[in-house]
Amino acid sequence: MNSECFGLAERLVDRTYVQQALQAKQALTNQIRVLLEHRKWPEEGWDEATVELLLHELALMDSNNFPGNCGVGEREARVASGLVDRRHFRLGHGIGRSGDISAIQPKAAGSSLLNRLANIFALDVIKLAGVRAAAACVLVPMATGMGIVLCLLTLRHQRPQAKYVLWPRIDQKSCFKAIKTAGFEAVVIENRLEGDELRTDLAAVEDKLQELGADNVLCVYSTTSCFAPRVPDRLEELAELCKKYDVPHVINNAYGVQSSKCMHLIQQACRVGRVDAFIQSTDKNFMVPVGGSIIAGPDERFIAEVSKMYPGRASASPSIDLFITLLSLGRSGYKKLLAERKEMFQYLSAELSRVAEEKGERLLKTPHNPISMAMSLTGSAAGHDGKDVTQLGAMLFTRCVSGTRVVAPGSDKDIAGHTFRNFGAHHDNYPCAYLTAAAAVGMTKTDVDAFIKRLGKVLGKSKSRSDEREGSFAGAAEPEEQGSVESTADTLDCSDER
Amino acid sequence: MNSECFGLAERLVDRTYVQQALQAKQALTNQIRVLLEHRKWPEEGWDEATVELLLHELALMDSNNFPGNCGVGEREARVASGLVDRRHFRLGHGIGRSGDISAIQPKAAGSSLLNRLANIFALDVIKLAGVRAAAACVLVPMATGMGIVLCLLTLRHQRPQAKYVLWPRIDQKSCFKAIKTAGFEAVVIENRLEGDELRTDLAAVEDKLQELGADNVLCVYSTTSCFAPRVPDRLEELAELCKKYDVPHVINNAYGVQSSKCMHLIQQACRVGRVDAFIQSTDKNFMVPVGGSIIAGPDERFIAEVSKMYPGRASASPSIDLFITLLSLGRSGYKKLLAERKEMFQYLSAELSRVAEEKGERLLKTPHNPISMAMSLTGSAAGHDGKDVTQLGAMLFTRCVSGTRVVAPGSDKDIAGHTFRNFGAHHDNYPCAYLTAAAAVGMTKTDVDAFIKRLGKVLGKSKSRSDEREGSFAGAAEPEEQGSVESTADTLDCSDER
Amino acid sequence: MNSECFGLAERLVDRTYVQQALQAKQALTNQIRVLLEHRKWPEEGWDEATVELLLHELALMDSNNFPGNCGVGEREARVASGLVDRRHFRLGHGIGRSGDISAIQPKAAGSSLLNRLANIFALDVIKLAGVRAAAACVLVPMATGMGIVLCLLTLRHQRPQAKYVLWPRIDQKSCFKAIKTAGFEAVVIENRLEGDELRTDLAAVEDKLQELGADNVLCVYSTTSCFAPRVPDRLEELAELCKKYDVPHVINNAYGVQSSKCMHLIQQACRVGRVDAFIQSTDKNFMVPVGGSIIAGPDERFIAEVSKMYPGRASASPSIDLFITLLSLGRSGYKKLLAERKEMFQYLSAELSRVAEEKGERLLKTPHNPISMAMSLTGSAAGHDGKDVTQLGAMLFTRCVSGTRVVAPGSDKDIAGHTFRNFGAHHDNYPCAYLTAAAAVGMTKTDVDAFIKRLGKVLGKSKSRSDEREGSFAGAAEPEEQGSVESTADTLDCSDER
Amino acid sequence: MNSECFGLAERLVDRTYVQQALQAKQALTNQIRVLLEHRKWPEEGWDEATVELLLHELALMDSNNFPGNCGVGEREARVASGLVDRRHFRLGHGIGRSGDISAIQPKAAGSSLLNRLANIFALDVIKLAGVRAAAACVLVPMATGMGIVLCLLTLRHQRPQAKYVLWPRIDQKSCFKAIKTAGFEAVVIENRLEGDELRTDLAAVEDKLQELGADNVLCVYSTTSCFAPRVPDRLEELAELCKKYDVPHVINNAYGVQSSKCMHLIQQACRVGRVDAFIQSTDKNFMVPVGGSIIAGPDERFIAEVSKMYPGRASASPSIDLFITLLSLGRSGYKKLLAERKEMFQYLSAELSRVAEEKGERLLKTPHNPISMAMSLTGSAAGHDGKDVTQLGAMLFTRCVSGTRVVAPGSDKDIAGHTFRNFGAHHDNYPCAYLTAAAAVGMTKTDVDAFIKRLGKVLGKSKSRSDEREGSFAGAAEPEEQGSVESTADTLDCSDER
Repeated sequence: MNSECFGLAERLVDRTYVQQALQAKQALTNQIRVLLEHRKWPEEGWDEATVELLLHELALMDSNNFPGNCGVGEREARVASGLVDRRHFRLGHGIGRSGDISAIQPKAAGSSLLNRLANIFALDVIKLAGVRAAAACVLVPMATGMGIVLCLLTLRHQRPQAKYVLWPRIDQKSCFKAIKTAGFEAVVIENRLEGDELRTDLAAVEDKLQELGADNVLCVYSTTSCFAPRVPDRLEELAELCKKYDVPHVINNAYGVQSSKCMHLIQQACRVGRVDAFIQSTDKNFMVPVGGSIIAGPDERFIAEVSKMYPGRASASPSIDLFITLLSLGRSGYKKLLAERKEMFQYLSAELSRVAEEKGERLLKTPHNPISMAMSLTGSAAGHDGKDVTQLGAMLFTRCVSGTRVVAPGSDKDIAGHTFRNFGAHHDNYPCAYLTAAAAVGMTKTDVDAFIKRLGKVLGKSKSRSDEREGSFAGAAEPEEQGSVESTADTLDCSDER
Repeated sequence: MNSECFGLAERLVDRTYVQQALQAKQALTNQIRVLLEHRKWPEEGWDEATVELLLHELALMDSNNFPGNCGVGEREARVASGLVDRRHFRLGHGIGRSGDISAIQPKAAGSSLLNRLANIFALDVIKLAGVRAAAACVLVPMATGMGIVLCLLTLRHQRPQAKYVLWPRIDQKSCFKAIKTAGFEAVVIENRLEGDELRTDLAAVEDKLQELGADNVLCVYSTTSCFAPRVPDRLEELAELCKKYDVPHVINNAYGVQSSKCMHLIQQACRVGRVDAFIQSTDKNFMVPVGGSIIAGPDERFIAEVSKMYPGRASASPSIDLFITLLSLGRSGYKKLLAERKEMFQYLSAELSRVAEEKGERLLKTPHNPISMAMSLTGSAAGHDGKDVTQLGAMLFTRCVSGTRVVAPGSDKDIAGHTFRNFGAHHDNYPCAYLTAAAAVGMTKTDVDAFIKRLGKVLGKSKSRSDEREGSFAGAAEPEEQGSVESTADTLDCSDER
Repeated sequence: MNSECFGLAERLVDRTYVQQALQAKQALTNQIRVLLEHRKWPEEGWDEATVELLLHELALMDSNNFPGNCGVGEREARVASGLVDRRHFRLGHGIGRSGDISAIQPKAAGSSLLNRLANIFALDVIKLAGVRAAAACVLVPMATGMGIVLCLLTLRHQRPQAKYVLWPRIDQKSCFKAIKTAGFEAVVIENRLEGDELRTDLAAVEDKLQELGADNVLCVYSTTSCFAPRVPDRLEELAELCKKYDVPHVINNAYGVQSSKCMHLIQQACRVGRVDAFIQSTDKNFMVPVGGSIIAGPDERFIAEVSKMYPGRASASPSIDLFITLLSLGRSGYKKLLAERKEMFQYLSAELSRVAEEKGERLLKTPHNPISMAMSLTGSAAGHDGKDVTQLGAMLFTRCVSGTRVVAPGSDKDIAGHTFRNFGAHHDNYPCAYLTAAAAVGMTKTDVDAFIKRLGKVLGKSKSRSDEREGSFAGAAEPEEQGSVESTADTLDCSDER
Repeated sequence: MNSECFGLAERLVDRTYVQQALQAKQALTNQIRVLLEHRKWPEEGWDEATVELLLHELALMDSNNFPGNCGVGEREARVASGLVDRRHFRLGHGIGRSGDISAIQPKAAGSSLLNRLANIFALDVIKLAGVRAAAACVLVPMATGMGIVLCLLTLRHQRPQAKYVLWPRIDQKSCFKAIKTAGFEAVVIENRLEGDELRTDLAAVEDKLQELGADNVLCVYSTTSCFAPRVPDRLEELAELCKKYDVPHVINNAYGVQSSKCMHLIQQACRVGRVDAFIQSTDKNFMVPVGGSIIAGPDERFIAEVSKMYPGRASASPSIDLFITLLSLGRSGYKKLLAERKEMFQYLSAELSRVAEEKGERLLKTPHNPISMAMSLTGSAAGHDGKDVTQLGAMLFTRCVSGTRVVAPGSDKDIAGHTFRNFGAHHDNYPCAYLTAAAAVGMTKTDVDAFIKRLGKVLGKSKSRSDEREGSFAGAAEPEEQGSVESTADTLDCSDER
């Protein structure tokens, strides 16, 4: 409704009230205007109704929603199911164009505009979270692993001879597989045990660079966010090495945006050395469904190259989700989430430490890991030799605790041709078994309290079990969370009181 | 509500009515049971309410929706925005697991089940549409071009030496870029002009295979669906060549599922020769938003390999969309859509032919192309030398006709290092300018009628304009649809009568 | 987004595409403008997205959605549940104002505007359906029975002495109870049996008017839509009587809008005699959920009086539903529905006649009833003396046939102090038992076919049962549909083939 | 999905995960079971997804959603618009049956069940809020005024001779009009001025009872919630009078449920005297859209009578809204809302008192009014003689303050035949002009702060204006909120900072 419509409405409803409504409408329109004019992630979040209105307006800008449009192409964003159409707010054209995932679509000005804004917000959030050196980013509808593949494929064009990717060990399958998928050979750099922490072996990296020849190395591929007792890589030093040897540097920052420490590491790395790209998942950092990642970097040209590598259109879903979420939160809402997460991290540390001590265990000292923490699982709590500890994950799982990982020595694993000793531990020979937990964005006090309560119960139980069934050997723990452990006799019990 | 709940309801509502409701509920539950038992795409479509109920039930199977769940991992499918959560039916965990996009997620039994069913439906629809030889498929949340990249990357592991991809020319950027992105060198095989049609030059393919050495060729990469006057590749013969030379064969079947002819070609190719994978877009064939593709093939193992190449979780959105759409349509609904499309193709041909003749043009004879057709644009209709014809696209665009392409000689284009003469024409020197239109699934008689009417008007206009402004030269047409042509003075007019 | 916003969008998306989007937006805005300017129910229906956009725009006009609004009253349309808020499109203020249900609300210009338009559409649809004499109407959020109460209460102020309401018998409880609720005494005029039909006894009405004294009669309260074999009242003649004796005339037109015959009767009555108001239900005529009725009449002043009788605000839900529905259908859509209903009436008649003859029964001849029809249930089909026929309803009910009524002699009923002989039959002594069915708007061929099939089966069964259990007496049929009959042993079976 | 379905799902997804999902599902089903078994408003609120699931399950119990149902009645809950159908969760049959709004519908077990539960919750909430004496209630889809009409109409049947309704003056149109609509004569009992408060003149009531004769009095009709400086009626004493004279007693408790004081008054009245019914609006007390009221009372039989007075089915919308809202809040959520309201009342009192003193005004002393308060508007703040004060409402309105009322002497008003002196003031001659504000449930600190800020500004302004335009006379204030005051030159300004 434009002002003419409001004028006509006065024939049906008193002028005073219509005028007031018009002014309220103008305030809203102004909100949109300011957004388009400043092209910045707003400080204050928008309410849901306003976000929906904007989505509606954007959808009207796409040709499939034009009144009287007739489509005679092979792709006209016709949607068969009303349910599907509505859930995408009638934005059917996806994002990008054949040559470039960031390109504007002629048939879909609204989707294109949404995607531009989502990318603008994404860059803003990365800067807000600490990497002010970020010059550009591209939001892709692929999870972090595939985002990394895209970066590696892009680097191939710059370094056609390079075969190797230097990779400080991090025991997550998808990280490692990304190298293989992109067609390169992973050179695994084992971590150094420093106190309880597992840290980057810088000397080993430099040795490998020299040994293989920098020209043969596609890139160094480092990691920020990881399960304790591994801690974020020494990014600053790695970046300096990369600069020194003129080797690209790609950083897996999967869930690091939520931590100012991880972001500070990247910022420093950009400042003092070489970083080509750092990749973060949208679901883990921004509380959207799985499906997107942000590829960012300090050099606009490289990010533009990456964005041109994606051949063809792509799903707009991750862009829509991020757009809605960041617009709804606003900068202040996101900052609040980050502050709450930091608080929860402290609270979880304290509580886990307390329960550990009660059970004769201890919280591992991993001060460099700002998100994940680990509690030892030695004989005193869970049977000796870590045998029984592998039951712990399953026992927590049946009590509706999701996300813990139990890591016990003994599990070698062959992934894409490489054999990892004690896969899951990030190390061939970590001194003890342990259980990890993380304080991720969105975690609540209720989560922590329920976890600690259930863990306490299970640890008691576990102990007695190990007494009873000393001979049973459950086999090595599957490090990818407890779910993969086979069902136990325990029935699900998610209540804490009943 | 289980039968106990229904029993209790009888204390509030008369037994007779509750019993009837229970029986109706059982009928619905039975519908779900049959689906899970038979694991087949149903013959009759489900109504929207039932589809929504099933989605709701599936969501309840994911841990983020468990009552009392506490999450202490780094990825717990927490969703910040209610708007986002609802649009994904609270399915936040995505699909796949670090090593495999088809893997079951411990935390997300419901999402995993949905994804399995979506993949089952996808295979069923491919068989129904004509490729009974399909043994497996994987639905990936990436558009066709990226799906092809994934296939090429998978093949690399089988043929580490191979550098070349043999590619019968098809002037769509994303098809070509897929080769580059995957890190290979495209060997372009120019098409042969046969009558009006552009067809595969089989001899040239075989010559190249011999010249480069089959071992150095990663694969032959052919195409079914394309803009007239190019027609689908000679798949059967290409497949035979691939078999003979033991070279993989990947088929871009972007929007070919909707055509029994395209699917028949693939079926024949699988039967007599070698096909490793054929890739189709979900949006173009199944009327869902852009974002997914189905990678299918006659060999289960190869498809399993491809599915293991995707590192990490992925967006469930394309799976959800396809699941809803195919379940809502049922086999009978989709067959009806295909039949209607065929009818519309006939109707569009007849009408376009009629208007062409009226304007002194003609419909090009491209009997092998079952979806797209082209009308000549010679001097009589649109100015001589094809100069002015490039305006035509823009003029149609402003009249809300989307999807036509005007191809005129003269536009060379450099894409990813390769120069294409007369890009858009699929040929260095096609004899005339032309306009293409397609009868894609979902097109209605209203679309055709509006298009023909507006085309008629524009052709008249265009003619007179060329008379007036004979000297103006608009430059070569951008083949990727009319939208890229700069705005004209024409204002938008989507109405036909008013 | 206004044109300034579009202008700013051009910094993010190409001007051409934004311009096209702007023009499309203007086309939409124009659609709204035309609606507000002409204030007429549009000929062509609006698509769902446009309707939703308009609802969104209207909601923004209500103060509870103003950015920055602060409420310090006792009623501020705060809504606790997001689910509730969204389902009402954030329109929380209801309609009307303390003194008048049609009044404009200062705090809710949008809701008020919607209500005005809904009332305008309502009057348009009544005229379109045949009562061109209608001068005004008011849409109230109450079902027909309560709408009639409101009319009777309004008439009381005009005729403070009047005690009686003359009411040609129609065996529907709510119709009769309306009189009692309003505080009047019903004078039941028994119907005349003419052939198979039950028709108004005009002489009896006039006798009563004279006997009671016209001044003591509040109104004549007649009926159009009713179950066969009763037929619509002789409205023209009743209206003439009312005019002659200067007595108000209120017509229960519950589901008569869907029938041109019923509407014609009202139109004629308005033309030649006296009609004060006729009331129709929104759910039965316009396929919206139960909850609203339209009170219309040829005299604006009386309708205004009625609208002022409702003390306080009221639910906007029925207005919203009717607004959406009529806007979505458009005049052409509703005309189509009416034409289809007429066709279904013919089809149902033919099919029911056929099955009746097969079973030795007959369709009663009720040519004056344009919606409902009845099939005899004599001994040949269903046991003699009508005893067993009462099972028929329940048997159909368990087969998912809803809406039939079986009427058998024998059931006296006391309602609000009055005893009706053979309640349900509209007559003390109708010659035979029968089953009714109706062709109401929205009925499909599938409905008819399923009904006929199941009826055929049940009639066969019923026959044999009556042979077996001749002595059992099920008691008189409850005329309000089959559901009230107690459950039988039959289990639900809604499938026709399986 | 029943357990058989889960079993079958194990063929597609690992047994462990399916089992866990099954157990989670059972927890949910158990939640529903407990609700149906205990038939009590739950202590803890349900989350939105669970509420939606239950609504979905209930909808499946209605015949219009039965698979294979065929409808041949005149009312089959067919819904033309998908948008409408979805917004009602596919519950189309409404509530009630011809004879009784609480009756179970054969065709709609789900809607009936929902309605029963909504009524159960309603009674629970009334007891929780303080009237433990409540024995029954009925939730009707009509606002409070019409709910009162229904009560009066019901009483008529008990007291056919009674003509008068004794009504302690409360200046809200709809309260008064209810008497007239029901067909009775209002006997207005003027209030006594006690300090700043306006209180019930008990002696006058008793005098009138004696004067008119108790048998001629239909009922005493009292009020709890009202705008200060009027305070709730002396219910206890009125109830004693009613008991003594055997006269019914109906209480307008429009927005009193939110105040423990109002509820306590009713509880006491029930305990010591006679109360037939007390009526409360759902929107004002439970934060749902306008449209419903709850008629409650200490005698089940009377409430049953009322519920039988509504002739015909009715909108289910208010029942659905209340059901969702109370289920989502739970008892604990509602108690929290009530506690917050009480706090806000204190805060608003303090702040309003502060600003009043700053401007030379004062907060009137009305300790008996627990919701509304009033600030004097004498010459010092707003011009003398109260002339200019009427501008104040409009000025606040344009600053997006909704809900204040300015009451100034001088406005006589004729309503339904009765002339009220100084309508709006509840008194013929209240000593000063004033402005009212209320702390209603859902009010936030932000509301209060914004109001106080804007009021402060406006009072300053108002003062100076009155200086300038001393001669202008704006006429008496329309007491129904500021909106009805004509527009001023002020433009809307809802921001407090800008």
